[in-house]
Amino acid sequence: MLTIPREELGQQSLALHQRYRGKLEIRSKVPLRTKRDLARAYTPGVAEVCRAIAKDPDLAYRYTLKGNTIAVVTDGSAVLGLGNIGGHAAIPVMEGKAALFREFAGIDAFPLCFEGYSTDFVDQVKNVAPVFGGINLEDIAAPKCFEVEDALQDLGIPVMHDDQHGTAIVVLAALINACRVTRRTFEDLSIVICGAGAAGYAISRLLKCIGYDPAICSTVREIVVCDTQGIIHRGRKELYRNKYKFIIADETNRSGRTGNLADAVEGADVFIGVSAPGLLTPAMIRRMNDDPIVFAMANPVPEIMPEQALSAGAAVIGTGRSDYPNQINNVLSFPGVFRGALDARATRISDEMKVAAAHAIAGAVPEPRKDRIMPVILDRSVTRSVASAVRDAAVRSGIGRKTSTQ
Amino acid sequence: MLTIPREELGQQSLALHQRYRGKLEIRSKVPLRTKRDLARAYTPGVAEVCRAIAKDPDLAYRYTLKGNTIAVVTDGSAVLGLGNIGGHAAIPVMEGKAALFREFAGIDAFPLCFEGYSTDFVDQVKNVAPVFGGINLEDIAAPKCFEVEDALQDLGIPVMHDDQHGTAIVVLAALINACRVTRRTFEDLSIVICGAGAAGYAISRLLKCIGYDPAICSTVREIVVCDTQGIIHRGRKELYRNKYKFIIADETNRSGRTGNLADAVEGADVFIGVSAPGLLTPAMIRRMNDDPIVFAMANPVPEIMPEQALSAGAAVIGTGRSDYPNQINNVLSFPGVFRGALDARATRISDEMKVAAAHAIAGAVPEPRKDRIMPVILDRSVTRSVASAVRDAAVRSGIGRKTSTQ
Repeated sequence: MLTIPREELGQQSLALHQRYRGKLEIRSKVPLRTKRDLARAYTPGVAEVCRAIAKDPDLAYRYTLKGNTIAVVTDGSAVLGLGNIGGHAAIPVMEGKAALFREFAGIDAFPLCFEGYSTDFVDQVKNVAPVFGGINLEDIAAPKCFEVEDALQDLGIPVMHDDQHGTAIVVLAALINACRVTRRTFEDLSIVICGAGAAGYAISRLLKCIGYDPAICSTVREIVVCDTQGIIHRGRKELYRNKYKFIIADETNRSGRTGNLADAVEGADVFIGVSAPGLLTPAMIRRMNDDPIVFAMANPVPEIMPEQALSAGAAVIGTGRSDYPNQINNVLSFPGVFRGALDARATRISDEMKVAAAHAIAGAVPEPRKDRIMPVILDRSVTRSVASAVRDAAVRSGIGRKTSTQ
Repeated sequence: MLTIPREELGQQSLALHQRYRGKLEIRSKVPLRTKRDLARAYTPGVAEVCRAIAKDPDLAYRYTLKGNTIAVVTDGSAVLGLGNIGGHAAIPVMEGKAALFREFAGIDAFPLCFEGYSTDFVDQVKNVAPVFGGINLEDIAAPKCFEVEDALQDLGIPVMHDDQHGTAIVVLAALINACRVTRRTFEDLSIVICGAGAAGYAISRLLKCIGYDPAICSTVREIVVCDTQGIIHRGRKELYRNKYKFIIADETNRSGRTGNLADAVEGADVFIGVSAPGLLTPAMIRRMNDDPIVFAMANPVPEIMPEQALSAGAAVIGTGRSDYPNQINNVLSFPGVFRGALDARATRISDEMKVAAAHAIAGAVPEPRKDRIMPVILDRSVTRSVASAVRDAAVRSGIGRKTSTQ
């Protein structure tokens, strides 16, 4: 458990960053001691490698860093909970993410923090893509994050916005095990998602497509999404200005419910909070279905504190925090998802791959209990299971190769 | 000496690149084993670091990779002698360059190979700059390379096109020692530069400003630059379409000479070739001044082979090749130049810094002889001398800081 006071942790973090001057280093894997070394790794020998790739650009995967390298890309518009703090201030988060990719999945990840200027962000990312085998989008404000991710799906390399899908995957994993321990099936579930930003949107969409998976083979009974204005429904005409909220309105809330969050959770089985501190009250939990599942993942202060949720009758409680049981943290998903995608040379990351990742995470908990639905986040074997499941799903769905060219 | 046949070297290079899957790896410098490690290096602790940089972007140098990281940037338009082979095929060269930055100067360098699309290259580079403490431009075709470099000088970080200035610096270093061994002074020199591309342009300009340096305090007597059409002079109206050739016409050839390369070298003290194989004949060398200096740096086949130049009477002969004496290779300059610029937190790389680098390289040869005007390229102590001289020159000329904030 983490018991360091917040201010002290901040000071420790500053000291750590100053001591190491950041968190990443770039090293040469090849020897560069003799003239012969130089002639092979650099000129004149390297010309032969360039010529080979010029003939067949695909050989960049065989002869360069590309096959194992991803970019961690942001525009600095929604960094942690700090808002639009710009390219420079975003570096520590992107560097940290890149370090996690290396530590958990052996991926060479480099942080790219774009700053405004005149250029379209999508073009910026496309232009810089040749060196990378994949792109992890990070901390980009909604709805721009949806547009950017959509526009980059034809790049030929996997591009995933982690705040959306990394989160959706771990939520689905938590839900799979929470259903096990409360003896529910997915098709019975009535789910409320509180928050219609990056994570809320992606969760709602992933929960819609879990039917793809033969192990589930059904979709949930009902999903209702709430934003700051209450329940999202087709009657809210102002939503038509935002393509992505319109999609939510169109795809969820089949029974056409209206009202606020308290109305939404009435009789629901599951509350998934990706919103703001304190939005869920004990009274609301008492109006949910029996043995309700509560994932309160606002960071660092959840929608309801676990102690309160427990005394209000929640059967399973998950948060984003490491100091409570059932930490739902996307470090369990993103390293393995990209590892598997790179290993399969997948051209994108499909819903099938995400669902497979969620099952691998859920399956990493041998006997789920109410206070243990998620594996511990430092368990590297989870990354390996996720990578393997994602690679297989990519091959199965025809967007990856069984054997890589490497 | 390198005696591997060209084809065999190419095969060895392909094998090396395939074995290592490229040449760079990215690693974490900070521990990431415990939850406490994660809390300090990543969330929630990292938020404090982000907040600090948001208030003062300059702190990115203290807390992130920025202060020791440069981008090796290309558009793939003039890679080695292979022409415009595009972003993917350029990767092996940029990766090699980045590996050299690490090995020689301890710099974290990352290759960025931009591909066309719709965006202006200058904007592309600007947009991606926040993460980097410097930018090494590489293998960009002339005259675009001049425009791009000019346009990036206000970024606030050092931006240098190595094919221009890295080459100009080592040529100046070679010339300093060649003058010593032939007992010439700079103000007596009549120099012919063959080639008006990236290197030729930069050499002509750096030779114009060596007067900045108190150790030289004079400019050369005459510089004449030749391109494929012969001597560049103000009468060639077609040059007015190309700003950079116009500058050459304006700044060189004071006596208004016309004609071809053979006319140009008549009576010259120095031939500097950055052009194409075989352009300089023994007959031309015989028409140069006594004890002529011949730098024939076309790669891999020089403007004249050293044996021929020697028998035609050349006193000092330099090439780009490692299998002859006097290898004039910019690996002696670029690592130290960027190391010094980063150490000084220089906002750009000035002519004074380049001249200082050249002197440091020349000074690294304790007793120059006709067959030893350059230090050996694998001598790391040269990089250290260059870095120190460049840092001091930056501070002296007011564009760097005496002590870094790190």
